[in-house]
Amino acid sequence: MSATPARITAVDTYDIRFPTSRELDGSDAMNPDPDYSAAYVVLHTDAGDGHEGHGFTFTIGRGNDVQVAAIDALRPHVLGRDVEELCGDPGVLSRDLVGDSQLRWLGPEKGVMHMAIGAVVNAAWDLAAKRAHKPLWQFLADAEPEWLVSQVDFRYLTDALTPDEALELLRRGREGSHARAADLLRRGFPAYTTSPGWLGYSDEKLTRLAAQAVADGFTQIKLKVGADLADDARRCRVARSVVGPDVRMAVDANQRWDVDEAITWTRALAEFDPYWIEEPTSPDDVLGHAAIRKAVAPVKVATGEHVQNRIVFKQLLQAGAIDVLQIDAARVGGVNENLAILLLAAKFGVPVCPHAGGVGLCELVQHLSMFDYVALSGTTEDRVIEYVDHLHEHFLEPVVIREGHYQAPTAPGFSATMRPESIAEYTYPGGAFWVADLSQRKEAAA
Amino acid sequence: MSATPARITAVDTYDIRFPTSRELDGSDAMNPDPDYSAAYVVLHTDAGDGHEGHGFTFTIGRGNDVQVAAIDALRPHVLGRDVEELCGDPGVLSRDLVGDSQLRWLGPEKGVMHMAIGAVVNAAWDLAAKRAHKPLWQFLADAEPEWLVSQVDFRYLTDALTPDEALELLRRGREGSHARAADLLRRGFPAYTTSPGWLGYSDEKLTRLAAQAVADGFTQIKLKVGADLADDARRCRVARSVVGPDVRMAVDANQRWDVDEAITWTRALAEFDPYWIEEPTSPDDVLGHAAIRKAVAPVKVATGEHVQNRIVFKQLLQAGAIDVLQIDAARVGGVNENLAILLLAAKFGVPVCPHAGGVGLCELVQHLSMFDYVALSGTTEDRVIEYVDHLHEHFLEPVVIREGHYQAPTAPGFSATMRPESIAEYTYPGGAFWVADLSQRKEAAA
Repeated sequence: MSATPARITAVDTYDIRFPTSRELDGSDAMNPDPDYSAAYVVLHTDAGDGHEGHGFTFTIGRGNDVQVAAIDALRPHVLGRDVEELCGDPGVLSRDLVGDSQLRWLGPEKGVMHMAIGAVVNAAWDLAAKRAHKPLWQFLADAEPEWLVSQVDFRYLTDALTPDEALELLRRGREGSHARAADLLRRGFPAYTTSPGWLGYSDEKLTRLAAQAVADGFTQIKLKVGADLADDARRCRVARSVVGPDVRMAVDANQRWDVDEAITWTRALAEFDPYWIEEPTSPDDVLGHAAIRKAVAPVKVATGEHVQNRIVFKQLLQAGAIDVLQIDAARVGGVNENLAILLLAAKFGVPVCPHAGGVGLCELVQHLSMFDYVALSGTTEDRVIEYVDHLHEHFLEPVVIREGHYQAPTAPGFSATMRPESIAEYTYPGGAFWVADLSQRKEAAA
Repeated sequence: MSATPARITAVDTYDIRFPTSRELDGSDAMNPDPDYSAAYVVLHTDAGDGHEGHGFTFTIGRGNDVQVAAIDALRPHVLGRDVEELCGDPGVLSRDLVGDSQLRWLGPEKGVMHMAIGAVVNAAWDLAAKRAHKPLWQFLADAEPEWLVSQVDFRYLTDALTPDEALELLRRGREGSHARAADLLRRGFPAYTTSPGWLGYSDEKLTRLAAQAVADGFTQIKLKVGADLADDARRCRVARSVVGPDVRMAVDANQRWDVDEAITWTRALAEFDPYWIEEPTSPDDVLGHAAIRKAVAPVKVATGEHVQNRIVFKQLLQAGAIDVLQIDAARVGGVNENLAILLLAAKFGVPVCPHAGGVGLCELVQHLSMFDYVALSGTTEDRVIEYVDHLHEHFLEPVVIREGHYQAPTAPGFSATMRPESIAEYTYPGGAFWVADLSQRKEAAA
């Protein structure tokens, strides 16, 4: 043991943007031209063990610089922390960041500042899992229930979930966890694919990708809807005819509708047997989701990728507003808050089917679902993680999908580490890609 | 008329911070040491009429730079706009900013990015009112109901309020508006004061300021609570004994409690006859507020200063969760969204009692309440605007309080313009105050 404890010595940030808008990858009714981006953070230490903590916020282009500024604003809370203490109890960092009385005014616990907290907190968990030589899902599944409860901020939750109830859920979740971990390592965790369903793809491309999805072993696909009803009906008919009646087909409106419109539109698509309607309206509208769910059953209602924090998830569950809870690894305040959300879902018996895609969201969120299966919910029934085949090549340990299943990561950490050459190439605006792009655009304009 | 239309030629931003934490002004159970700050924006034009549009986000210190970065990210949407068109229809700017498909990801419509939109939109309204030679309240009150409806974004609202209903409310609000405008100019709009009630003030200071409030003609005061129940009870007893039974005494917990704790604590203070309990829990917790309201009646429930947007206000009203709706001029997306919120409150018959204080919030929000009185709700009954005697000296047209009433501003614009010498002095970190402060702190540390 060294005389002086290891410290966090640097918090480096990067504005990384990929030019995805040129291919219509990721286009939907609300997001016609996303440039998938990451406000990326790296925690360095003087431990001398070679480990860094990596984390990021996913954005879709403009504003990624604001997100980086928000992470930079958190630097004073992180620099100089004792690495051993940080990794032994990331909840302290989480509470310090969420609780900063001045920064709190910018939320509280929502939007740019909260996503920045999520990036930094996730980086700390990445570091902790690497130092423990475990993939994050296993690091969490191996942890004592009491310790996991200590990682959760129960503020504003106790009318729905108390620490004692959480402890009980985690203790129950441990029963049989070793067998489930073995099963996970053997089979992986079920995935569904959104790759066929982006708006802007031709029917030919939709047909080809939907057939490919079935051939690849996926048992659920998802289509984007909400821009034009006739177009949606045509695309749903095409997709259903390709995948047959037994593959689940979810539809996703990306917040496009008001409550009444969501009901009318979803009912109009009901003949194609959609499994769930995702983000039918504003992610802030708990009561709206409850009204929609009541009106469109048996079509299920799913939301969560834009839900700002555990308090809104709590209400979605209390109000019986959702059938499927979609966590996102990089929108809320990081692993700690996602533990709270997984516990809430377990308490209310609602399956968690994470949002993924974007930049690195698949890499991150698989760990949370795998922990949920192994040591909390104890089942993969009706649970699927979204899979989109974008940008994985930029990560050191990209997700591996086989037979429609995410294969359990075995490398230590949170799978968050981006390849250094990708960071260098796509840093905005100074990276090689963007320098060349800007110069081409200048020439074209001249 | 000039050959080329006038344009927005510059969008200047300033990080302005006042060292209020040294006096415990503004201290409450969640915000022990605020440095009241403004992320400030000025729109310049080439119209040659000398008018600028001023707006700002209020923050409490750290993170004000992130807020400035967010306003900077909006600049491309504003630069080059036709001034005549902008001032004739600020709703276009509002929709363009809220609708930016990439920036939207950072919210949507909440937190740092949404507050930045509010600052810019408010600056546009300041410019529009100045060019029309009217104070904003009058500019709004004189506008045609159809035009006002066109300024509102009804997305996600139509299950609670349709454009037709809004038009009907505004048409009804016009009846008798001239008489009410005359009354407003004569009497002003009722205020209440928070000055006596900050945590950290001694009982002697509380007694002195509460007595002063009554002597100054206020019929309502407010105390901060939530840190320590015994302390709160003592301070409520002191204040009640000073102001007597007929002055309303509100209490404000600044989001300190979980739902059950809010109920217990509020009931424990009921013997002092609090008029409302403000922000008993998370501003995101619609269902929590509904549960609290049911349990603490006849004490009223008030919230809103941290409510992120019209969609959450809609639900607070739909759920019967509040007795008093507290708009804030600088948290939501500016005048356009506050019009939506005032219309929702009118539809549900809930009185609007704005949050103010901070930096310039009194200056801004008085205009919205005055419009509400003159041309929408038509009454000041049970309506009061918060008043805090802080930092008004930094504004060119500070609020004027007489006999416990805000006097109606008569100068054109939104009263948002800060004195140039204040901006120069308190710009962070380069302004004269902060340069001297930093050098003193360096000396003290040496």
